[in-house]
Amino acid sequence: MILIGERINGMFTNVKEAIADRNKQVIQELAQKQTEAGASYLDVNVGTAASDQESAIQWLVETIQETCSTPLSLDSQKPAVIAAGLKAVNIENGVILNSTPLNKKSDEEVFDKYLEMAQQAGPKGSIIALTMDKNGVPQDIDTRVSIAAEIVSKATEKGFDTQRIFIDPIILPVKVPNAQVQPGNILSAIDQIKYLSDPAPHMTIGLSNLSQGATERSIINRIFLAMAISRGLDSAIVDVLDRDLMNAVATAEMLMNKQIYSDSFLKVYS
Amino acid sequence: MILIGERINGMFTNVKEAIADRNKQVIQELAQKQTEAGASYLDVNVGTAASDQESAIQWLVETIQETCSTPLSLDSQKPAVIAAGLKAVNIENGVILNSTPLNKKSDEEVFDKYLEMAQQAGPKGSIIALTMDKNGVPQDIDTRVSIAAEIVSKATEKGFDTQRIFIDPIILPVKVPNAQVQPGNILSAIDQIKYLSDPAPHMTIGLSNLSQGATERSIINRIFLAMAISRGLDSAIVDVLDRDLMNAVATAEMLMNKQIYSDSFLKVYS
Repeated sequence: MILIGERINGMFTNVKEAIADRNKQVIQELAQKQTEAGASYLDVNVGTAASDQESAIQWLVETIQETCSTPLSLDSQKPAVIAAGLKAVNIENGVILNSTPLNKKSDEEVFDKYLEMAQQAGPKGSIIALTMDKNGVPQDIDTRVSIAAEIVSKATEKGFDTQRIFIDPIILPVKVPNAQVQPGNILSAIDQIKYLSDPAPHMTIGLSNLSQGATERSIINRIFLAMAISRGLDSAIVDVLDRDLMNAVATAEMLMNKQIYSDSFLKVYS
Repeated sequence: MILIGERINGMFTNVKEAIADRNKQVIQELAQKQTEAGASYLDVNVGTAASDQESAIQWLVETIQETCSTPLSLDSQKPAVIAAGLKAVNIENGVILNSTPLNKKSDEEVFDKYLEMAQQAGPKGSIIALTMDKNGVPQDIDTRVSIAAEIVSKATEKGFDTQRIFIDPIILPVKVPNAQVQPGNILSAIDQIKYLSDPAPHMTIGLSNLSQGATERSIINRIFLAMAISRGLDSAIVDVLDRDLMNAVATAEMLMNKQIYSDSFLKVYS
């Protein structure tokens, strides 16, 4: 399971303040803690409040890299912010560009831009591609699968290895009215998308979005994550500091035979 | 979710002793507690140690029915024990006969016998049928599905409503060497079996068998149960007194839209 630690994000107050104050300690502690908890990548998102997003992401990348070599996931919808972050990244560790839709109404070339930057980031450069296009987030399974197919085909045409693509089928909050049908749709989409190519693209989700605004966030997150792992989800952007979540991941992987059962499988994982 | 409470079973020492001593209090407390915890049915299994299994099951049924009207699941591989239990059952509450393979080497008519008894038990009489035949427990998905198809077809021929059949694909302990591949197989079997007829048969599993002999039993049980609910499992024989398990069920059902999300969905369920 490729787990991307979500905590270095300007939407959290402590991170937002640390960015404004250029307080390295807060960021470096979050980087170390998430690494120790088992993060494969650290997400880096300056948030919408940062005054100069390009210099903010560079500062974040440099600050994290001073303290650990965990690969980073540069998280922005703006190609210029990703490009700025990339300048500071040690690409030998690997990097994910997070994330791009297939295209936007305002920018039909956005997917190509992210793909090109990932290619320039060397053999360990990956992208997260959202099953979303100029019409927004699809409400059904088939449109998600067909956008994913187009993503895989576009990347393959450009000689980009499918194993460097993470497809994100976009999970919506369970609390949003009329989005009630979504979690089951996401599971079916994962089921189908993993057969689009061989080797298959990775599948990822921004898990915490599911429980946005709900009162029982942790159990909603971990129960859905277990279901999704059983369909072939092999990556997720999560709170790796949530111990119950990490135990659920270890158990789900053991059950799906990605780890061998041993009496202390939870300890082995952590 | 049709949850069958597993605790009144002679394999548990307190139940075994209560049966030997004809101690009503132990049994009646287990019946009440499981009913309050949300059991749809109470499993009734005298265990292999009981000296006279036929009189023991009758005593259990009568003892439980003195204190609550929760429907019972008569649990024995011996038709004579089921028949004895049935004599004492209040069939107006409903009853499940648990369980029969399609046939056995030693008794090719065993499925027919259970079906006939379920028919005699009136409109609320159901059976649990194991995807198992004279060759034992299948090691693959396809054999499970084809045995299930034969079960559904045999029952339909005899005019038995498919909604009165619970198919149990038989989950083996994750700790058994070479059985590591089983949990994923069971999920795929559930996926396929539910399309065998319309209306579909119920799907059930004896969940606790999965974690037999393992150290982290509760988390293994609840993580697998969540995965299976996402495939269409609509019944399980479980420890309904395991609060974490019941919360996992509530969350899984909410995510699969079998319950509406509300801020207090866990409380509403319990």
